[in-house]
Amino acid sequence: MTVKVKDFGLNNLPDAVLEEYGDKTKDPRFRKVMLSLITHLHAFAKDVELTEEEWFAGIQFLTAVGQKCDDVRQEFILLSDTLGLSSLVDSINHDSAGGSATESTVLGPFYAEGAPELPMGANIVQQATEKGIRAVVMGDISNEQGQPIVGATLDVWQSSSDGFYHMQDENMPDHNLTGRFVTGEDGKYYFATEKPAAYPVPTDGPVGDMLRACGRHPMRPGHLHFIITAPGYKRLCTHIFTNEDEYLDSDAVFATKTSLVGEYKDCNDEALAKEMNVEMPFEKVVYNFILAESK
Amino acid sequence: MTVKVKDFGLNNLPDAVLEEYGDKTKDPRFRKVMLSLITHLHAFAKDVELTEEEWFAGIQFLTAVGQKCDDVRQEFILLSDTLGLSSLVDSINHDSAGGSATESTVLGPFYAEGAPELPMGANIVQQATEKGIRAVVMGDISNEQGQPIVGATLDVWQSSSDGFYHMQDENMPDHNLTGRFVTGEDGKYYFATEKPAAYPVPTDGPVGDMLRACGRHPMRPGHLHFIITAPGYKRLCTHIFTNEDEYLDSDAVFATKTSLVGEYKDCNDEALAKEMNVEMPFEKVVYNFILAESK
Repeated sequence: MTVKVKDFGLNNLPDAVLEEYGDKTKDPRFRKVMLSLITHLHAFAKDVELTEEEWFAGIQFLTAVGQKCDDVRQEFILLSDTLGLSSLVDSINHDSAGGSATESTVLGPFYAEGAPELPMGANIVQQATEKGIRAVVMGDISNEQGQPIVGATLDVWQSSSDGFYHMQDENMPDHNLTGRFVTGEDGKYYFATEKPAAYPVPTDGPVGDMLRACGRHPMRPGHLHFIITAPGYKRLCTHIFTNEDEYLDSDAVFATKTSLVGEYKDCNDEALAKEMNVEMPFEKVVYNFILAESK
Repeated sequence: MTVKVKDFGLNNLPDAVLEEYGDKTKDPRFRKVMLSLITHLHAFAKDVELTEEEWFAGIQFLTAVGQKCDDVRQEFILLSDTLGLSSLVDSINHDSAGGSATESTVLGPFYAEGAPELPMGANIVQQATEKGIRAVVMGDISNEQGQPIVGATLDVWQSSSDGFYHMQDENMPDHNLTGRFVTGEDGKYYFATEKPAAYPVPTDGPVGDMLRACGRHPMRPGHLHFIITAPGYKRLCTHIFTNEDEYLDSDAVFATKTSLVGEYKDCNDEALAKEMNVEMPFEKVVYNFILAESK
């Protein structure tokens, strides 16, 4: 018996690889994803005529990205974010297609389950920072017909004015600057916090090295993160960006949208300050969320 | 002052990302690689309309690949190998273009610096395996004009007949089945070993999960690894594959080439057995390497 030998080279790569995966991968969706991935991976290497040194630098980079990840750090999400992939995937899956629902944006690497359930109006600041500007965030959660949505759950999280999320800073209480609120009959939401400031994405890992090598700054404009859910409606994962932030035109993760900018304004409403138990002076931002019905 | 807000969405991704990296990345080669990478990464996500669940599964997979790597395990090289990328990069950089020099193939994840320097003719087996077949490997190292190359260094490594490289098996002596030989005036090389058998690439990590999900077997046909270097010649990284191996037509890492198959034959040469200090019976393979001159 003579065993046939398969020959691999420039003349049949990636076709021979595609044939192998195409023949053997049973799940049709997984097959489609794998074949496209292999096609683009090989096309990239051919397009740039990737050298062996570059290939190995890539292996080392990806290994370092994986090894930087732990319970509170997700360097691969950060890589996806800084290459614009996360924003693209968000756009692919939540194309507003001209509807009136609030636009979505990226999740980011710092969402953590377990935010405290708080009564509407609560303050999510467990530990204030010196330079933090007190703020009240409020608005309606309604459907595309303008009707208030009762029982919507609003999950909010943000970094402190020092630029860190609670899991990044061991001196911060767990779940500082996070909260979970449920709307009542009026569909309104309101809570007190610190006005989100611009901050750098973590730059002490391989993604920071990449940003420096590419001459890119690591800054994100200040923003509040939200995930809003309600029975019968599509889940909305979005931000309210802080107006007048100098990084609104160069977000390191390509996630800004004009419609998601909230206008913070000085507020002199003493009745509101008393009701919300917030010291004067403070700023106020009103942002209304509109959820699309789930099909 | 009103800060301009950049809007990102399906209508300008990846163009806006390409513009950012294109403008800021100073090194022209690095810029070219980054722009091609971003182009193909985004095209992949668009082509398959990647869902958020699939994106997150990808993040988790790549994280697991990175975290499986350690001093003796390189799961990202294994991923590159099993997607055919390593073979493609080898082909891009070592296209034989019709010359007579020996073809190259992939390095694989199990090369380790520090193989023992051995006298020509030595046995690289420090610890024999029960089912190992004794073998003598020999041949010429010459240039494309047929002249012997004096002072060529041949680095050889292989897995045991049980399917493990020395660093994978804590019961194996360090650098078992590896060696470094330097050719003399005749340009000949020869050493004793065990005939390499087929073995599976490691399947206890995420790449193993991927192979199973894709219905692919993890087997590689038996092979000896070589890196051959000599002053004035291009470095040759290649294999001698074991003839009649059942996996020569389905190498899990797409690295086989007809020209790299060595014919192992039963050998009754008692004088050779005595000279090489090898017990009868044994097999012999003769394979001649031809190095291309460096330009």
